[in-house]
Amino acid sequence: MKVELKHLAMAVAVAVASTAAWSSTVRDEPITPIEPYVSDKPEMVELGKKLFFEPRLSMSGIISCNTCHNLSRGGTDNIVTSIGHGWKAGPVNSPTVLNSSLAIAQFWDGRAANLQEQAGGPIQADVEMNMPHTLALDVLNSIPGYQDEFEQVFGKREIDMDMVTAAIAEFEETLVTPNSRFDQWLKGDDNAITAVELEGYKLFKDSGCTACHNGAAAGGTSFQRMGIVRAYESTSPVEGRYSITGDDADRFSFKVPTLRNVEYTYPYFHDGQANTLEESVDIMGQIQLGRHYTEEEIDKIVAFLKTLNGDMPNLTLPILPPSSNDTPRPNPFQ
Amino acid sequence: MKVELKHLAMAVAVAVASTAAWSSTVRDEPITPIEPYVSDKPEMVELGKKLFFEPRLSMSGIISCNTCHNLSRGGTDNIVTSIGHGWKAGPVNSPTVLNSSLAIAQFWDGRAANLQEQAGGPIQADVEMNMPHTLALDVLNSIPGYQDEFEQVFGKREIDMDMVTAAIAEFEETLVTPNSRFDQWLKGDDNAITAVELEGYKLFKDSGCTACHNGAAAGGTSFQRMGIVRAYESTSPVEGRYSITGDDADRFSFKVPTLRNVEYTYPYFHDGQANTLEESVDIMGQIQLGRHYTEEEIDKIVAFLKTLNGDMPNLTLPILPPSSNDTPRPNPFQ
Repeated sequence: MKVELKHLAMAVAVAVASTAAWSSTVRDEPITPIEPYVSDKPEMVELGKKLFFEPRLSMSGIISCNTCHNLSRGGTDNIVTSIGHGWKAGPVNSPTVLNSSLAIAQFWDGRAANLQEQAGGPIQADVEMNMPHTLALDVLNSIPGYQDEFEQVFGKREIDMDMVTAAIAEFEETLVTPNSRFDQWLKGDDNAITAVELEGYKLFKDSGCTACHNGAAAGGTSFQRMGIVRAYESTSPVEGRYSITGDDADRFSFKVPTLRNVEYTYPYFHDGQANTLEESVDIMGQIQLGRHYTEEEIDKIVAFLKTLNGDMPNLTLPILPPSSNDTPRPNPFQ
Repeated sequence: MKVELKHLAMAVAVAVASTAAWSSTVRDEPITPIEPYVSDKPEMVELGKKLFFEPRLSMSGIISCNTCHNLSRGGTDNIVTSIGHGWKAGPVNSPTVLNSSLAIAQFWDGRAANLQEQAGGPIQADVEMNMPHTLALDVLNSIPGYQDEFEQVFGKREIDMDMVTAAIAEFEETLVTPNSRFDQWLKGDDNAITAVELEGYKLFKDSGCTACHNGAAAGGTSFQRMGIVRAYESTSPVEGRYSITGDDADRFSFKVPTLRNVEYTYPYFHDGQANTLEESVDIMGQIQLGRHYTEEEIDKIVAFLKTLNGDMPNLTLPILPPSSNDTPRPNPFQ
């Protein structure tokens, strides 16, 4: 206990010192730098990583969180809308898991308050992993390797869903991408971005994009209507926050997506209908700001957006514990 | 050139020295230890790893080599037969990629002579990744990050299929699992396995299993008929090597699977119909050896089999380069 307190005190001291180190020089901008997340529960993070890569949480035995939030690919799957159990297409484009801890809520419509609340959803959704929580727990509880590890982390062998989602959420907290060139610029390095990229940022800010794309994630701080000045044309039946609140004012209102690593997270928008950053900037300008950017302006903004690529999480591929003879077997065709 | 020759000479010297170090003590058994593979092309290995995890080599954009040969799960998918494009079930159980370099040929029916020849098959197979090679190359050649990396490794930017499969094969060469407890025993450590595990090995050897399950991979050294003493009952229409050679003697002849890490590679047999090691040992005894093992005998053999778990490859998850605006987009529903 003494040792732990000492470590905590040291961690606080280091955190304060490092905050001071950059806060004295950080530029006052609507987008703020991302800081690394150092978990005080490293064993829970490792367990959460295993669960994030765990296909046995799906009925088919082949779909894991990482299928649609692929950490080799900016935390998304780069298809229009995700493909789940039985090759069914989901209703929306898979949002990136990277920096998702920085958002006010989870899912495009914000129906989960936090990462832990989010994590249970896709496991049981029939167009995603299609796995009843009870069966997911039967599977995990039949695997001695998991029982040992949950006991080590949570102090009990009988695994429940709160433990599963807590571990996944703690792993996801670590999935931040600091040290982008834009962040280096924010922290005072004038040479971290080019003159054109800086012009792109100024145009982005001065024309109003940062009204919504702000904070550490350059998004995720508010819900906004898709199509403020002009209606967004889409064949998608999804209505955003309206489906949660039932309030007409929330129709087509979505959580503003993060622009961090946006070069990696194509295609864009909740319906995945914009293939390129150029197309996305063009459409956003028109429907949200009533502005027709010139081709040159679009190129500058896109150049800026690519400075938001940060350091991707450096992850060792987890080795998952083998099933036992008692483990319920997957059923891809159920 | 001088430097390279010097390195080569050193590598040979080290190899000779390390061979000498263990060959003086290694036990004379039909199963031999696995040695680590140290590639002299580390950049090609890194590129091959990216391609192994690359879903853009599939028409859907979501299936990679790692989908069915999951390196978190003993190099297989742990389902009866693999699920591929459009949720179609493949004809056979996915064999592990781990230690596959040690086999005489690739695929259950041995239709590919080596790993490089194998690598192109699943990319274009309609029940697997369903991607014409021409389109796969269009995709790769449209991605600047890949063009740079292929140029660095192969000296040219125009990517062709030989380069793709050579890189994947070189990565797969590294996927060996040395240092199992059984290998430690082979190398002279009497305490590496228990008395029961040793009894299991002796029974395994004395009853004839090592006639087929031999060599470094404890398998993969020959083709054998499934059902020598008694026919194997299966609803699978697959006929093994007969479909390659057309020779009646090859009907139901399959490459003997490796038993390395077999605790991880359930379910078993070419049709994936045996769920447990106990069931597999029982069936093998009956149909290959005409022997009914007692429950106690089966338990001992299974205890031995679990000593074949080696060190899984320690892999950093690759970060895949983003597509460009010119990259052909995936089409899950084609």
